Amino acid sequence: MIVFINGEYKEEDKAVVSVQDRAFIFGDGVYEGLRIYNKKIFKRQAHQDRLQRSLDEFKIEYQLTNELERIYQELYEKNGYTNEELFYYFQISRGAGSRVHAYSSVTTPVGIYAFLVAKPMSLENYTQGINVCTTPDIRWARCDIKCTSLVANCIANEEAQQKNCTEALFVHDGVITEGTLSNVFFVKDGEVHTHGKTNRILGGITREVVIELCKENSINVNEFPLSLNKLNSIDEAFITGTTGEITPIINIDGQSVANGEVGVMTKQLQKLFKAEVKRECY
Amino acid sequence: MIVFINGEYKEEDKAVVSVQDRAFIFGDGVYEGLRIYNKKIFKRQAHQDRLQRSLDEFKIEYQLTNELERIYQELYEKNGYTNEELFYYFQISRGAGSRVHAYSSVTTPVGIYAFLVAKPMSLENYTQGINVCTTPDIRWARCDIKCTSLVANCIANEEAQQKNCTEALFVHDGVITEGTLSNVFFVKDGEVHTHGKTNRILGGITREVVIELCKENSINVNEFPLSLNKLNSIDEAFITGTTGEITPIINIDGQSVANGEVGVMTKQLQKLFKAEVKRECY
Repeated sequence: MIVFINGEYKEEDKAVVSVQDRAFIFGDGVYEGLRIYNKKIFKRQAHQDRLQRSLDEFKIEYQLTNELERIYQELYEKNGYTNEELFYYFQISRGAGSRVHAYSSVTTPVGIYAFLVAKPMSLENYTQGINVCTTPDIRWARCDIKCTSLVANCIANEEAQQKNCTEALFVHDGVITEGTLSNVFFVKDGEVHTHGKTNRILGGITREVVIELCKENSINVNEFPLSLNKLNSIDEAFITGTTGEITPIINIDGQSVANGEVGVMTKQLQKLFKAEVKRECY
Repeated sequence: MIVFINGEYKEEDKAVVSVQDRAFIFGDGVYEGLRIYNKKIFKRQAHQDRLQRSLDEFKIEYQLTNELERIYQELYEKNGYTNEELFYYFQISRGAGSRVHAYSSVTTPVGIYAFLVAKPMSLENYTQGINVCTTPDIRWARCDIKCTSLVANCIANEEAQQKNCTEALFVHDGVITEGTLSNVFFVKDGEVHTHGKTNRILGGITREVVIELCKENSINVNEFPLSLNKLNSIDEAFITGTTGEITPIINIDGQSVANGEVGVMTKQLQKLFKAEVKRECY
């Protein structure tokens, strides 16, 4: 696979960065994960806006222009892809410099790393649903910034795998915030519930699309966190994310969600989402 | 400067790591900062024990043996140092692999990066004291693990510089936890106060030495956090760290600490610390 690193296109195993890159020594970078359908970047502008916000929040002085599109095109061609569906990763670090926490030691422009890879969604997960576990939300207080200091997410995701779960849901102050790489939704009495867009969650693009689709289809959305002790009264649950779109949850911490089958509302939203993809990219 | 990277000694500007290194994409690494006095690593065993604990807590399967000492010796010789006092950085990442949060994607051994650099303590700070500010502690809940997902510390440290302060003190739930790269102590009525060794602070080696020195010299130490609203009643304050040893704080958020002069107890502890260094390294 050919990847993009700091202005060059290189074979992945020859793509390197300086040990002084702040993403390497401080986790001081931001990123996006995007989805390609039919050779087009889905919701490119929304991803670009979020990436610019992450840069701005981190006071990384860099103004995005057309690099998301341009580098994607190059990666697609140089890798000779013919796939319709791909995953596109785009990371920007503050730059490189001697290891000093404050920013004045940075002596280079920002570092940019990007790759484009076939990463098909799991059809089994998508149609049959997944098992998840809950885990204490030990992350920092700025989960709204999509940054590369991700070790808390890695730890929780690994915990999920060890428990034969696909995803872990974070619990902060007794409420469910989101997954390690997804947002989470619940359905109760025909209404949809998801944590509000606060500093405790990453405002997912797929999450936004789902909320929009609900509104367009007269489905009530409550942007309010679900208490852990209300889990046993929900009718349906699903996670949203760039690759998995809308993935049903059928079991949480070993307990079936309702009757343990993929819910009606979840299936309806999956269809509406597919239609939105078709509308935008086909 | 010649640095150590994954088994090789290289000029710093030619030292690189794979873009797949998990420290680069996930901040998934641990590290130590050590101090060299008289060509000896101060409290080497304590640093090694802490690094092993960080590795174990992160489930990075790696058993330290003599690499801290061995790589230090090589770096000292290859750089032709004659300095007596140096700073030694030692980082271990989980390894490299495709970008998947869980650990099963790691395909290489751990990555090791180390450098040795002249980084003299600031005599001005040491003798005249520093200004600090307070800042909300937005870090994750495992501050006890010395890991490279450090972006919250970088943000707070940069904030301090912007306010013409040397360090920022984190405030969590109304109490002062520690600095962005130091622990913090307060003195009141001849007794010493510092936050207990919990998950909210990094248990500093210098902090441990200071507590030991207090005990040996019949100075009461209270390992209990200081509420922000008690700041105006303290007599002295200082931070502790590998490079700065014991650095007096004379001003917090624009308010003088007591009369704004370096305190008697702080000076006494500075002397006791210097004696401990002499005892161990000279």
